[in-house]
Amino acid sequence: MKDKPYELFYWPSIQGRGEFIRLALEEAGAPYVDVARLPEGRGGGVKALMKVMRGAPGTLEPFAPPFLRAGELVIAQTANILQFLAPQLDLVPAEEARRIEAHQLQLTIADFVNEVHDVHHPLASSLYYEDQKAEAKRRSQIFRAERIPKFLGYFERVLDHGKAGHLVGGRLSYVDLSMFQVMVGLAYAFPHATAAFAAKIPGLVKLRDHVEARPRIAAYLASERRIAFNEDGIFRHYPELDAS
Amino acid sequence: MKDKPYELFYWPSIQGRGEFIRLALEEAGAPYVDVARLPEGRGGGVKALMKVMRGAPGTLEPFAPPFLRAGELVIAQTANILQFLAPQLDLVPAEEARRIEAHQLQLTIADFVNEVHDVHHPLASSLYYEDQKAEAKRRSQIFRAERIPKFLGYFERVLDHGKAGHLVGGRLSYVDLSMFQVMVGLAYAFPHATAAFAAKIPGLVKLRDHVEARPRIAAYLASERRIAFNEDGIFRHYPELDAS
Repeated sequence: MKDKPYELFYWPSIQGRGEFIRLALEEAGAPYVDVARLPEGRGGGVKALMKVMRGAPGTLEPFAPPFLRAGELVIAQTANILQFLAPQLDLVPAEEARRIEAHQLQLTIADFVNEVHDVHHPLASSLYYEDQKAEAKRRSQIFRAERIPKFLGYFERVLDHGKAGHLVGGRLSYVDLSMFQVMVGLAYAFPHATAAFAAKIPGLVKLRDHVEARPRIAAYLASERRIAFNEDGIFRHYPELDAS
Repeated sequence: MKDKPYELFYWPSIQGRGEFIRLALEEAGAPYVDVARLPEGRGGGVKALMKVMRGAPGTLEPFAPPFLRAGELVIAQTANILQFLAPQLDLVPAEEARRIEAHQLQLTIADFVNEVHDVHHPLASSLYYEDQKAEAKRRSQIFRAERIPKFLGYFERVLDHGKAGHLVGGRLSYVDLSMFQVMVGLAYAFPHATAAFAAKIPGLVKLRDHVEARPRIAAYLASERRIAFNEDGIFRHYPELDAS
């Protein structure tokens, strides 16, 4: 663990991809600063984020947030950050084979999250939702009918293989925390579709409840540090994309 | 390096995401078997792929190809496989900071490749291109105008920071090989759009030529092991998605 707090750089008004990092830091009780949520007068705001994003001296310019500053390093790409942090936060087993598995699952979660985003933005991130609403509706039908069952069914099978109801190595890992976020995000964005599917994924439902009840996560979720879901993030509740 | 050849599992008729692994193995001259391209009588074919994909005993079931069998391990997710292979193939520097950078760039390439795919499949992978052609056309306009410049401009800046014309650590890495694949793939799929942009990315053009001329890569590209680009893969040439 570093002496200096970790610095997380992410958009200050959404959970987004930054939330996967926040959950890991919160579960571990690690000291961190959510830089862009600090006032500008204290070196925060989007301004501070953009400054590091343009490339701090001696570091690789990130393509996009989230990124993490840890000592001399500036690390981008959500799964890459988690892979770096997890051993320091004791959120992954020590064996190489388990770490490779954890990362593989996290990258599969990342693929799923990309698809969730593209349900409401099938044509371009740079267009408003309103300008691609008809296409979003078509995409959402197939997403609900095919992709939610495919991804959640896969993770449920992985759970069955695991021990003690965890995705990796029979103990809590950062992948479980990310899976929790996916579960609550889907329930927010697609309440009808996920309720209809819940009976088929009892293990994932139990894992979600387990993570939600962990003392540090429960405290975090009840705090102001947890940003509420909203329609600027990845998981958006547009009733027309959820109707059965 | 293992005594037993690496076994790569990927669809036998496309370059797809498997190609990023093939290029690394070929550049290193590593012994490997492209399992699904072997005849069924010799333990190959899609049948052999599907069998391992359903989960080999004691291994984590992959969500999708490509995956690699190396000794006891079965590893999925392209960037995860490359991260595992690269130190064994001497295709990444030894320093942790450089390895984190390489992986970060590879994950950014993976994001770009996902977007390339979704240009021709904006609504769903399970629908035919013909059933989402109008949407693909709209997405392609924005992809060409915004996303190609954004991604390639980013990688060109990373090259400027690097030394000796490489993306990571001043020497050839697997990230350079993947970047080559992106460059030739884009030129195949979007010849007009990429020709118009080439003057702005001289470093990437030089890197592409450098990789293409490396003896083992040149021999590979001239061999039957290199599958030709086609309209079942990620990089597809549909003239209507490239017109200016």
